[in-house]
Amino acid sequence: MTTPTVMREEIDEQPLAVERTLSQLLPMRVELSRLLRGRRQVLFVARGSSDNAAVFGRYLLETHAGHSASLAAPSVATHYRARLDLSDTVVVAVSQSGRTAEILEAVAWARACGARTIGVTNQPASPLVAACDLGVVTAAGPERAVPATKSHLTQLVAMAVLATAVRPDPGMDDVLHSLPDRLAAQLAQVEQTRAGAALLAGHTGSILVTGRGLLLGAAQEVALKLEETCLRPIRSYSYADLRHGPIAVVGAGTLAVVLASPTGPLADPMAELVEDLRARDAEVVGLGGTPRFRAACQHAFADGDAPEWAQGFVQVVAAQAMIEATARLLGLDPDRPRGLAKVTRTDMDGG
Amino acid sequence: MTTPTVMREEIDEQPLAVERTLSQLLPMRVELSRLLRGRRQVLFVARGSSDNAAVFGRYLLETHAGHSASLAAPSVATHYRARLDLSDTVVVAVSQSGRTAEILEAVAWARACGARTIGVTNQPASPLVAACDLGVVTAAGPERAVPATKSHLTQLVAMAVLATAVRPDPGMDDVLHSLPDRLAAQLAQVEQTRAGAALLAGHTGSILVTGRGLLLGAAQEVALKLEETCLRPIRSYSYADLRHGPIAVVGAGTLAVVLASPTGPLADPMAELVEDLRARDAEVVGLGGTPRFRAACQHAFADGDAPEWAQGFVQVVAAQAMIEATARLLGLDPDRPRGLAKVTRTDMDGG
Repeated sequence: MTTPTVMREEIDEQPLAVERTLSQLLPMRVELSRLLRGRRQVLFVARGSSDNAAVFGRYLLETHAGHSASLAAPSVATHYRARLDLSDTVVVAVSQSGRTAEILEAVAWARACGARTIGVTNQPASPLVAACDLGVVTAAGPERAVPATKSHLTQLVAMAVLATAVRPDPGMDDVLHSLPDRLAAQLAQVEQTRAGAALLAGHTGSILVTGRGLLLGAAQEVALKLEETCLRPIRSYSYADLRHGPIAVVGAGTLAVVLASPTGPLADPMAELVEDLRARDAEVVGLGGTPRFRAACQHAFADGDAPEWAQGFVQVVAAQAMIEATARLLGLDPDRPRGLAKVTRTDMDGG
Repeated sequence: MTTPTVMREEIDEQPLAVERTLSQLLPMRVELSRLLRGRRQVLFVARGSSDNAAVFGRYLLETHAGHSASLAAPSVATHYRARLDLSDTVVVAVSQSGRTAEILEAVAWARACGARTIGVTNQPASPLVAACDLGVVTAAGPERAVPATKSHLTQLVAMAVLATAVRPDPGMDDVLHSLPDRLAAQLAQVEQTRAGAALLAGHTGSILVTGRGLLLGAAQEVALKLEETCLRPIRSYSYADLRHGPIAVVGAGTLAVVLASPTGPLADPMAELVEDLRARDAEVVGLGGTPRFRAACQHAFADGDAPEWAQGFVQVVAAQAMIEATARLLGLDPDRPRGLAKVTRTDMDGG
């Protein structure tokens, strides 16, 4: 092995980053609960990796806390300047840097529309914290590699803190406290990582990533990370959208990365999906899933026993490690992918 | 020319289908307005082409009617069976056939959660109409080709009827009544269609489709139609998501289909995007847009003067014609793409 990349170092810091973030955020649930009380809607505002964390937050709030949540269309705020009635809404803005202009603009808009606001960021002194009613500051520490890893994972922790602030659940708390160990155990699976990376790097056809429900955000994050870090075009679909048409173009030239839970209401449909993809001669790299799911994959890994809602934490980390290794196999520098900057401007004018 | 395909016949029926649908739906606005009154949220439930129409409906409701709207995550209803408080919500289910099991299940769930329900469908005698408080039945007529064309376009009409039921706007009504003529004029642009199809069929690299805001749903529909009909893997991004990372993988092997409006707050950013894509050596087929946008494209068409919210009607029709011609150039049968059925089951068990 050569010198480890910064990306890999930051991937390995995640058990600690999660532990620090839990210590910092769990005591905030009283305040969060007060802010959310009496408001029926949560509206997430985010882009990129932060948006993928928000997708997870949306499913977790709805399925585990019974609280309506959705994703904002930021241009409705920033470009169309629509006047909505957000007096029943808490807007949760998620931005690692806390200084993405578009997100700050959307927060100002939300306040003007009557929303209460929560800012989830990794930067305590950021404009986002200053602009929101409550700042939820993750403790990922400074992130130097361009691909977001630990900042994303600590955002996932923030989503779980939010959901358990709405509906306390001691069982979920136990799982949250077990996450650092689960992540460390996954990161020790060096051979799994190597085998997955070899398959990905050797594939010359098209690549798609899919997942569903509580793992949809994780699937989107894996797709984004793979595209950004390995500079390969990746299609990302929810399971249902894939089934609803695009599966027709899956064939021998396709490699599918499929995220699934070993338990929960989607476990069996995901196993059937993988069997269907294989019947179409696609290669499949699977994360999680049932024994039947794993048996149908060319390479299956990240097969821990975390409950469905917590599978994404482990699977994203497993995928990050595989993607970092794939980039190196392809002769790329995962720390500084071509054409990407750490803080992204959505518009050329700096918006 | 050989015998026209059924898909092309149905594409050509759209001016009439839109006119029939307007006659049928415009008088329903009194009822729609009564049903929406006093409820702050609209939640769309849909899949595939219907989901793309819902994305347009969401933007139109928020930007033109100042009414909060979002897209449901159907598995929250059908698999997780979350108990949400939807007593402030009108659920709008969109399904061409009106008999997609997943959508019907989501409607039953929404009612149990306290939602009022509207079903947008092309089938008056469908289970969806029976299940909803109000059926909004489009008048596309029977659709025989597998790729949805006129059923999708009449769903867009239903979305505009919904938005103007919430906030009446005589200017929008004038544009709605002008749509049949605008569509017919676009369909007469045979040379534009031929040139676009030649570019698409001749491209052997990767293809992406992008749009933003009021044209995001149209971009998603163009991507889905292209993928389903021409059996090519297509990546579809919102403008903002593309800028936020994946643009890094755009290069000489990429063809981008870009949808833009000649006016509105996103017109200039879209022109800048095309210039940026060209600077990365991508080929660009543009629909709509400003003169600067069109000057930067290899091939630009559908350059009518409809207002931003109505551009999607014309651009989707222009793209359908181009896609149908592309499929024929590729030696494919656009009427019966491999692996697609008219009513899609999201789950293997027929859910």
